[in-house]
Amino acid sequence: MSEAVSRPTLEAVAARAGVSRATVSRVVNGGDGVREPLVERVRRAVEELGYVPNQAARSLVTRRHDAVAVVIAEPETRIFTDPFFALQLRGISKELTAQDNQLVLLLTEGRDDHARVARYLAGGHVDGALVFSLHLDDPLPGLIEGAGVPTVFGGRPGWGGGSNTARYVDCDNRGGAEDAVRHLVGLGRTRIAHITGPLDQTSAADRLQGYLDVMGEVMGESDPRLVVASDFTPSGGERAMGELLDRCPDVDAVFAANDLTALGALRVLREHGRRVPEDVAVIGFDDVLPVAEQTEPPLTTVRQDIEEMGRLMTRLLLSTLTRGGPAAGAPAGVVLPTTLVRRATA
Amino acid sequence: MSEAVSRPTLEAVAARAGVSRATVSRVVNGGDGVREPLVERVRRAVEELGYVPNQAARSLVTRRHDAVAVVIAEPETRIFTDPFFALQLRGISKELTAQDNQLVLLLTEGRDDHARVARYLAGGHVDGALVFSLHLDDPLPGLIEGAGVPTVFGGRPGWGGGSNTARYVDCDNRGGAEDAVRHLVGLGRTRIAHITGPLDQTSAADRLQGYLDVMGEVMGESDPRLVVASDFTPSGGERAMGELLDRCPDVDAVFAANDLTALGALRVLREHGRRVPEDVAVIGFDDVLPVAEQTEPPLTTVRQDIEEMGRLMTRLLLSTLTRGGPAAGAPAGVVLPTTLVRRATA
Repeated sequence: MSEAVSRPTLEAVAARAGVSRATVSRVVNGGDGVREPLVERVRRAVEELGYVPNQAARSLVTRRHDAVAVVIAEPETRIFTDPFFALQLRGISKELTAQDNQLVLLLTEGRDDHARVARYLAGGHVDGALVFSLHLDDPLPGLIEGAGVPTVFGGRPGWGGGSNTARYVDCDNRGGAEDAVRHLVGLGRTRIAHITGPLDQTSAADRLQGYLDVMGEVMGESDPRLVVASDFTPSGGERAMGELLDRCPDVDAVFAANDLTALGALRVLREHGRRVPEDVAVIGFDDVLPVAEQTEPPLTTVRQDIEEMGRLMTRLLLSTLTRGGPAAGAPAGVVLPTTLVRRATA
Repeated sequence: MSEAVSRPTLEAVAARAGVSRATVSRVVNGGDGVREPLVERVRRAVEELGYVPNQAARSLVTRRHDAVAVVIAEPETRIFTDPFFALQLRGISKELTAQDNQLVLLLTEGRDDHARVARYLAGGHVDGALVFSLHLDDPLPGLIEGAGVPTVFGGRPGWGGGSNTARYVDCDNRGGAEDAVRHLVGLGRTRIAHITGPLDQTSAADRLQGYLDVMGEVMGESDPRLVVASDFTPSGGERAMGELLDRCPDVDAVFAANDLTALGALRVLREHGRRVPEDVAVIGFDDVLPVAEQTEPPLTTVRQDIEEMGRLMTRLLLSTLTRGGPAAGAPAGVVLPTTLVRRATA
């Protein structure tokens, strides 16, 4: 490497613009309290000299903020109780930090706040956005597209109908579900139930489809009473399992749409004196730790590498920003494989 | 209320500036790809007509972003494992949403990233900042002050030496600790230990001071072997409790600096066959739920209203922003009282 080239100083900019050092500093830090003609003169001097003292000035010249927004389309309360989000954020945070980009997490109380999130994104505060946990009728993707902010989605977006060019990272939800149900079939189970996630999310819809595929293939057709809709939470899993035991007391296996749901189901099975896996085998999805290891008994589940998905989303976005757009012919979606992790419940 | 006054349209701005509708829209949404002289003309037309179509244009005119940054001076991993932060964020999120302000959470991997956080704050992306979990030698407060961003701190800032005008919300850490230790003394305990938090945080230092005050008052002087330094985490509490049992096998009470530390201490006491509270009484601090209710036995602890502290920090900051500065003579700090919550451990 050669020696660092000497850079123009703040003083040089001040002299060029014919203003004080303090004025340059104020303009470079946002321009508060400086009259517009002076702001203009300083900006011109900054550009002419190629002055790059710090982030603020750099973004003045390059329009880059070295900041990326993360939007999780769930209420703030769920983000802090579902370990899935912490894991995904961990992958994103590590990758952004390695590239000296700031992670800007935009929290909301619910969908009513999504228009405000879109306004913030449109306001020129970040270079791009990572968006996940989208629900089907959420206006957010349209709002983000309108704002013109480069975006990578976590999970295949489901709003469809459009050009299908949205970039995303997902795991093989359907294939993972098929593996889980085939494993239960291989154990000799015949009354295999499915507790779904929220079906307005593609991850939940794809897992249901995987379940139905294998059940159709093996059983000819599946008993619709064996499918109960739920919401990816432990309490939802409890309610669904209670309903299942009422409807189909002969149930001998449960494929739960995620680990938290399986956790709730295990609790209810224990309360009803059903032995796991002897009476009812249970499989989850995600392999979020420590949840999956600490259930009683430890949970057999479909593993997706959540942290890696976060890292990959981030790398895709940053490479898009660097090149000014996705490479021609680049695939819109990246789908990672899943693995069945056998512990004690199936 | 009277009828809504008709507002100038995008078209009117375009006509006034002599540019296309699309150009106005692009300028209003950040100005990407529009030459500077055109940007200038559009801005002037926007100001002259008082055109306020949305957030982006409003911030162009008022320099307000309706966004507040939250900075927690801890690695991202701790934020998602210590329920304290989730509670504080809940209070902040509710209050900001009620005022239609966007919560912008700036995550970091550690202190090395604080300079980047300060650059983001200085870059004009938020109206103010809420900053908590500061450690003594953290450069962040100085960097934030330099950036000129209105700030309210969670917890009394400890860097001192300066003008002491930093605004903050805290709980009565010292008084709460005194209550806890007096309660243990009232139970007839004489070998009362303290497991501290990180002593470069004022909350931990104040709780230690409260312990020392009462011990000095009651015992004349305290046995320094009864104080073990720790870090507010369950595993830190485990290590500290193990050390305490080695050093002072006759310990008959423990005041832990927070609930997570108490959780770790309870585990180690159980492993060593010490009955709680018969052999060793335990008191925590915070009353974070469900932790404090779900320990075995349920934890006696010093309650601070964490969610309310978050709300109060937010209200203080927003009122400062509205008025353009704190009211003359306004106290720098607001200190909330604590309550001893008796459950089963003391």
